[in-house]
Amino acid sequence: MNTDVFFLTMGAAMVLAMHAGFAFLEVGTVRKKNQVNALVRVITDFGFSTVAYFFVGFAVAYGINFFAPVAELNVLGDATNGYKMVHFFFLLTFAAAIPAIISGGITERVKFWPNAMATVLLVAIIYPFFEGMIWNGNFGYQAWLEASFGASFHDFAGSVVVHGMGGFLALGAVVLLGARKGRYTRSGRVQAILPSNIPFLALGSWILCVGWFGFNVMSAGTAEGASGLVAMNSLLAMVGGLIAALIAGKNDPGFVHNGALAGLVAICAGSDIVHPIGALVIGIVGGAGFVIGFQFIQNKLKIDDVLGVIPLHGGAGLWGGIAAGIFGSTALGGAGGVTFMAQLVGTLTGVAIAVAGGFIVYGLVKATMGIRLSEEDEYMGADLAIHNISANPEQDMANH
Amino acid sequence: MNTDVFFLTMGAAMVLAMHAGFAFLEVGTVRKKNQVNALVRVITDFGFSTVAYFFVGFAVAYGINFFAPVAELNVLGDATNGYKMVHFFFLLTFAAAIPAIISGGITERVKFWPNAMATVLLVAIIYPFFEGMIWNGNFGYQAWLEASFGASFHDFAGSVVVHGMGGFLALGAVVLLGARKGRYTRSGRVQAILPSNIPFLALGSWILCVGWFGFNVMSAGTAEGASGLVAMNSLLAMVGGLIAALIAGKNDPGFVHNGALAGLVAICAGSDIVHPIGALVIGIVGGAGFVIGFQFIQNKLKIDDVLGVIPLHGGAGLWGGIAAGIFGSTALGGAGGVTFMAQLVGTLTGVAIAVAGGFIVYGLVKATMGIRLSEEDEYMGADLAIHNISANPEQDMANH
Amino acid sequence: MNTDVFFLTMGAAMVLAMHAGFAFLEVGTVRKKNQVNALVRVITDFGFSTVAYFFVGFAVAYGINFFAPVAELNVLGDATNGYKMVHFFFLLTFAAAIPAIISGGITERVKFWPNAMATVLLVAIIYPFFEGMIWNGNFGYQAWLEASFGASFHDFAGSVVVHGMGGFLALGAVVLLGARKGRYTRSGRVQAILPSNIPFLALGSWILCVGWFGFNVMSAGTAEGASGLVAMNSLLAMVGGLIAALIAGKNDPGFVHNGALAGLVAICAGSDIVHPIGALVIGIVGGAGFVIGFQFIQNKLKIDDVLGVIPLHGGAGLWGGIAAGIFGSTALGGAGGVTFMAQLVGTLTGVAIAVAGGFIVYGLVKATMGIRLSEEDEYMGADLAIHNISANPEQDMANH
Repeated sequence: MNTDVFFLTMGAAMVLAMHAGFAFLEVGTVRKKNQVNALVRVITDFGFSTVAYFFVGFAVAYGINFFAPVAELNVLGDATNGYKMVHFFFLLTFAAAIPAIISGGITERVKFWPNAMATVLLVAIIYPFFEGMIWNGNFGYQAWLEASFGASFHDFAGSVVVHGMGGFLALGAVVLLGARKGRYTRSGRVQAILPSNIPFLALGSWILCVGWFGFNVMSAGTAEGASGLVAMNSLLAMVGGLIAALIAGKNDPGFVHNGALAGLVAICAGSDIVHPIGALVIGIVGGAGFVIGFQFIQNKLKIDDVLGVIPLHGGAGLWGGIAAGIFGSTALGGAGGVTFMAQLVGTLTGVAIAVAGGFIVYGLVKATMGIRLSEEDEYMGADLAIHNISANPEQDMANH
Repeated sequence: MNTDVFFLTMGAAMVLAMHAGFAFLEVGTVRKKNQVNALVRVITDFGFSTVAYFFVGFAVAYGINFFAPVAELNVLGDATNGYKMVHFFFLLTFAAAIPAIISGGITERVKFWPNAMATVLLVAIIYPFFEGMIWNGNFGYQAWLEASFGASFHDFAGSVVVHGMGGFLALGAVVLLGARKGRYTRSGRVQAILPSNIPFLALGSWILCVGWFGFNVMSAGTAEGASGLVAMNSLLAMVGGLIAALIAGKNDPGFVHNGALAGLVAICAGSDIVHPIGALVIGIVGGAGFVIGFQFIQNKLKIDDVLGVIPLHGGAGLWGGIAAGIFGSTALGGAGGVTFMAQLVGTLTGVAIAVAGGFIVYGLVKATMGIRLSEEDEYMGADLAIHNISANPEQDMANH
Repeated sequence: MNTDVFFLTMGAAMVLAMHAGFAFLEVGTVRKKNQVNALVRVITDFGFSTVAYFFVGFAVAYGINFFAPVAELNVLGDATNGYKMVHFFFLLTFAAAIPAIISGGITERVKFWPNAMATVLLVAIIYPFFEGMIWNGNFGYQAWLEASFGASFHDFAGSVVVHGMGGFLALGAVVLLGARKGRYTRSGRVQAILPSNIPFLALGSWILCVGWFGFNVMSAGTAEGASGLVAMNSLLAMVGGLIAALIAGKNDPGFVHNGALAGLVAICAGSDIVHPIGALVIGIVGGAGFVIGFQFIQNKLKIDDVLGVIPLHGGAGLWGGIAAGIFGSTALGGAGGVTFMAQLVGTLTGVAIAVAGGFIVYGLVKATMGIRLSEEDEYMGADLAIHNISANPEQDMANH
């Protein structure tokens, strides 16, 4: 059991690192005048998420809190050595991924404190509500699925519980916020807004890729349960995603580096039950689907989802939830124990809660506090407007 | 026991990574003309620290050396599989943090080789002297504390042994070195010297935050001793620190990213005995105290501690040592076994040794070799003066 | 056994991270107009390597494939929990290091798809051919060495199998490709081509250094086999390498950061059998040798090996293979079990296969597809030529 504390500490540290990955993916993709804001928003979202999940969210999902003295918390000198504490840490890094995902969609024009308020509501209530339904059997939802469709909803590491949730929560936020100034002209033309820094974007992607093996493998919860299949499937889906996005995205660096992530999003749900070749296919579809979805949402639907988090986390997450029901079947070399219908219904339930939750939470915040920067602040950039400093202060001052 | 080698390897690798974090925190905070020097100084300080600790320091602290043949070192095929070797590695990464911490205070005007000389003296003698007193019971100091104040000095992961020591050693170094040219005018005005690169600063902070979970959790020494409480308390103190610094620092990116570190510095000592809510409070005080201390030292005391390592590692470390004596008590939900007086005396002893040690070592080096760059070299920047190359050579040459 | 899956997952994640290190080492060293291409090439090389090793290479080296259904793959609910799958992942990260190493030599003028073709051939055939000879006893080569020279070839973590192979494979590639335009004038003068970004170079080196402890320690394969000696020796060789390169390279940031890597390359082979002081010496020779070799190859031989991968991986790898036969002997405090001649012959065999393999593979690709960018594309830069975007698109467009 002591190895389990070690095991989850490594997992939690790796997923904590992913938050740095989210930050740099965003820093690289936004314009230079919004880099500082991206960094500060991601780290403070993590901070507020921790507080919200510690005081409320964890109890919502699992009915556990930590308000007794250390002696009674049974964390010292007992057989588990504080396992449930590090388990909290591990699950918090997942919960905190929700605002980190959304952040990439709403960046460059969102207000700081209203966003923090939305973060608290999401991590204290909306996310743990669905998390508890799926991972803790709350409300009898899983039992109902099993009775109705022959299996409960299988989402091993959160294609839907985390990524689908985050990606589709972003939909309401992005729509309510509106597009960045100049993104779409009155005549309906789409204007490119160029990213500031491809190396930072790539750095963010690499950090996310590496940390993801903690996200997926440590989702087993115990060292005893650690599975080589999960590691291998994550690898193959990542690779499938990046190769597909390379080709579909015509060698674009943003697509290839995000394509790897799309593959990883898609494999979370079924990583413990699909065949490695199935994982490769899941990743390929995830990566290609991301490129197509990104272009469709930005150019046809004209939704200004800056980093493409709706297709990346939402779209690939949705696909991952359903794909576990296809490639997890023994007929396709998988381990079985899942049904297509349970996966489909479970996935759509998550998407529906996310879409509704996003419009409710951001609608509430918009109505009460306002969520969008003033036109002047957006033009000046969130860095100077909110943080009173730019990303390269020495150089930027010299240029004035 | 074999799991312990794995356990400490991960811990050592994570704290090794923190040195990259120190490097980038400094690169981002200094002016562009000193970025290369920051990078080279941090990695070579690590190199010289390793040699000093291997040949001298480790024996000073623990009375162990490694000068026998491998067969007699009992590292192959024995029950521990070379545990004491990886334990050396883990402790070395702590010892090497001393010059890495100081580096941030003395940067932008310190000479290269005299600094290396100070590094060797600190890691071979000063640090292991105090380390051995506290962590190896040397000189009967801990026994005396226990007899006098009812408990030995509890510093689980080094709030005082590592951070307080590093931060207060920097005091002598920074004072003896003097402020950077132009930092304070003759009339006593404080002039802002702007940081070069906020994303690099943030990257450094993130690397440090993630690595810190190796610093704290692996301080248990064995996988068996790994404690979920330590992981959770580190998380909550980090979050408390960053939120407090965000607010006290008015959304400044430097404060929020360093505030997380202040919380982590402060929790090291008591992370295994305080209640998670105590950890949150310790972090909040650490983060807010850092912002206040930073401004006081820079603007009132006019000490040019560039990265603020005196308030960050010194101040928050001092607070952490004492706080373990407050929040560790069973009355505040802690695990007990500590007394306020033992924590206070132990902490102040460390601070006193550090302040004295800093003035002695840097005074000695100053008297014999000189520690400050010439005025022309400082003006030109340490990069061109010492390393004959700038941070962006291609672009910088094109601009000439 | 379950701990082994955890153990190798961490090792594989750490070596996966090294690929980000390779990417940033290259990004920092090339000119700005080729940064995006370096990033995309490294991540897609990793992708193609995975596919090649999964479908062909792993079977070439170990005779194992994964084409049975999950139930028969015996990875779920069996005693090993899918150990061989995570073992594949770990070994893949080594195999994929081959193109990542070569990439630094051929960068700034290589064509994209022909390079991908070479990657596939190398990882599917050439690398696993030699890997299997040494690490799986294929073709009776090790048995023959043992019969002839008193010991098999000892290459614990791949000084020769991975690094020597990669470095000497690069020779053929670099020679067949030719130097970058302007690197050597007609009159034979050597013209410096300045690196773009030292902080990125340093970041790459740090990521590689940290990941290397996974590369070396986890090469034990099982948590039971994890050795503190390997960790300590890796540390000391890294430090020896960086200090020697600092001095030999006159404080140059490129040399010191690559010197640490040279020490690590050199210690791979003997890290489990040499004395720590032997490891320090191995690192010193590796680091100094890298600086000398780099200058000799670039300035005397006029081979335009951009990052110096031939001296770094090839030279230090060759030295590491032989050094294990010297410092591994009990006479020098080592653990014995090796002979100088077996190490020499094994090393030279690897070098010969690599040199031949490099000329064959890149010769084949050159003859069929061409490997070099057109003159205009090279002048414009691979970023715009291949990826249609530059590293800092927002800023670069504003400058037009």
